[in-house]
Amino acid sequence: VTPFADRLAALVEERRSQICLGLDPFPGALLPEAVKVAEGDDPAERAASAVRVHCRLLIERAGPHCVAVKPQLACFERLGAPGWQALRDTIATAQAAGLLAIADGKRGDVPVTAAAYAQALAGHTPTPWGDVPGLGADAFTANPLLGGDALEPFLDAAATAGAGVFILVRTSNPGAADLQDMPSPKVPLHEELAQLVAGRAGRLAGECGLSGAGAVVGATEPRHLARLRKLMPSSIFLIPGVGAQGGRPEDLGAAFASEPRHPAAAIVAASRSIAASPDPAAAAEELRNAVWRASNA
Amino acid sequence: VTPFADRLAALVEERRSQICLGLDPFPGALLPEAVKVAEGDDPAERAASAVRVHCRLLIERAGPHCVAVKPQLACFERLGAPGWQALRDTIATAQAAGLLAIADGKRGDVPVTAAAYAQALAGHTPTPWGDVPGLGADAFTANPLLGGDALEPFLDAAATAGAGVFILVRTSNPGAADLQDMPSPKVPLHEELAQLVAGRAGRLAGECGLSGAGAVVGATEPRHLARLRKLMPSSIFLIPGVGAQGGRPEDLGAAFASEPRHPAAAIVAASRSIAASPDPAAAAEELRNAVWRASNA
Repeated sequence: VTPFADRLAALVEERRSQICLGLDPFPGALLPEAVKVAEGDDPAERAASAVRVHCRLLIERAGPHCVAVKPQLACFERLGAPGWQALRDTIATAQAAGLLAIADGKRGDVPVTAAAYAQALAGHTPTPWGDVPGLGADAFTANPLLGGDALEPFLDAAATAGAGVFILVRTSNPGAADLQDMPSPKVPLHEELAQLVAGRAGRLAGECGLSGAGAVVGATEPRHLARLRKLMPSSIFLIPGVGAQGGRPEDLGAAFASEPRHPAAAIVAASRSIAASPDPAAAAEELRNAVWRASNA
Repeated sequence: VTPFADRLAALVEERRSQICLGLDPFPGALLPEAVKVAEGDDPAERAASAVRVHCRLLIERAGPHCVAVKPQLACFERLGAPGWQALRDTIATAQAAGLLAIADGKRGDVPVTAAAYAQALAGHTPTPWGDVPGLGADAFTANPLLGGDALEPFLDAAATAGAGVFILVRTSNPGAADLQDMPSPKVPLHEELAQLVAGRAGRLAGECGLSGAGAVVGATEPRHLARLRKLMPSSIFLIPGVGAQGGRPEDLGAAFASEPRHPAAAIVAASRSIAASPDPAAAAEELRNAVWRASNA
């Protein structure tokens, strides 16, 4: 299998884009065209069908300017089984459009359970009735609070599937400072987390020199970017927090100073600023250009 | 609504039990009676139908000795939409048997997404087609790495629903030491997490004096229990790691030294040691007696 890092690297160069389309569908704020065609026997089915169409339309409109989509699992789970099916369909739609799918669930659990999550996200589950395929994601996010042993099943499954893992290092919300910026004791916790990621970069390294053992690093505190890039020279960064949360593309240059230097060293996720725009394609293209400039590619 | 703490307290006293039946179904290790009646059009549906029956049988057999069940979300998610439906049905089955349902998903995300997870777990989601109910869990586990602001939506939703939240403080896996035991800088990180929980105990306090702003504290390092109990005097502890992971009921006494003292101050989750026993009812009863003795109730 081709490692995630190499698949991403090729796509970034081909599309000259580092944009990841966040898909966080809120049933009360879907595209009118999607609301109109909702169908099903109950509110969950109707909402899930509208969410599926909403995501497909966003992928059609903004997708050509992006390299990946990032469905937010919470937004699908809350619609129950029909929501989970819409999630699976959305991932397939994105992949059919040539995009990589990053399942954003921020899972983390003890090793035996982490292995089950990995089956759900990027693997398959053997059963007496045959294999049950997971979501088929190209990459997924993971929470490292449970420590190194709990990350291993994610990395194992990712290596097998040619997938990437984006480990939370410094998230984009204000409360991230509570724990992730805490001294521990010499460096902030997020630097410890970065070392935990860096030590695993070899596990998912691609031919391009980048590693699919990646890191989630928010755009809202760009002062952390340069230091975290030094600590994790080859890890691909997944950067949320641009747009609605206040992060600015022009502050992200340091994220691209990878070793080796590569335009796929970071991808920038944007949800509301694209989905809620009157012209999602134009919003995605504008962001693409701004990030490409910041990357100095 | 009656707070989770009070509902749990009444049930613990009535059943003289602090046992939480962990439901971590592995499709390759289901009860033979469940495997036999599997039905559906594809492996996912068949496996999910068998998982549903497996959980129902375990609830029937071991449930009377327990006060709660703890379905492991990963084990259902990996079976896709049919798995999610089996999860919902299992929660309903447990509640119909008089048990509380603790959805163990260890979710954690930025506030807007945490709110979506809370809708999925213990709330409902408004849509243009009507409200979509979540899983209806009585309590759920949560990961605090994203900080205080990211816990608020969980606490808000729990307060509205009369639910409990068990926040990861010191998990039961060996790798927990990597971060959770790290000095930060004066105390280990898990003590910082404990303070984060303790500061929120008032939010979900019950008449019984205990708080549904609870903590996950593993049984595998019982030396932490007394200190963590002092830091979180009224929080209900959810204790995994007994049995297969090596934790012993007789080492758990300190977890029950709550202020005020109450037999519902801690509940002990056991999965494999009950589900994989030739006699799940006897295994649950034995564990119940051992924990009840340790609680000095």
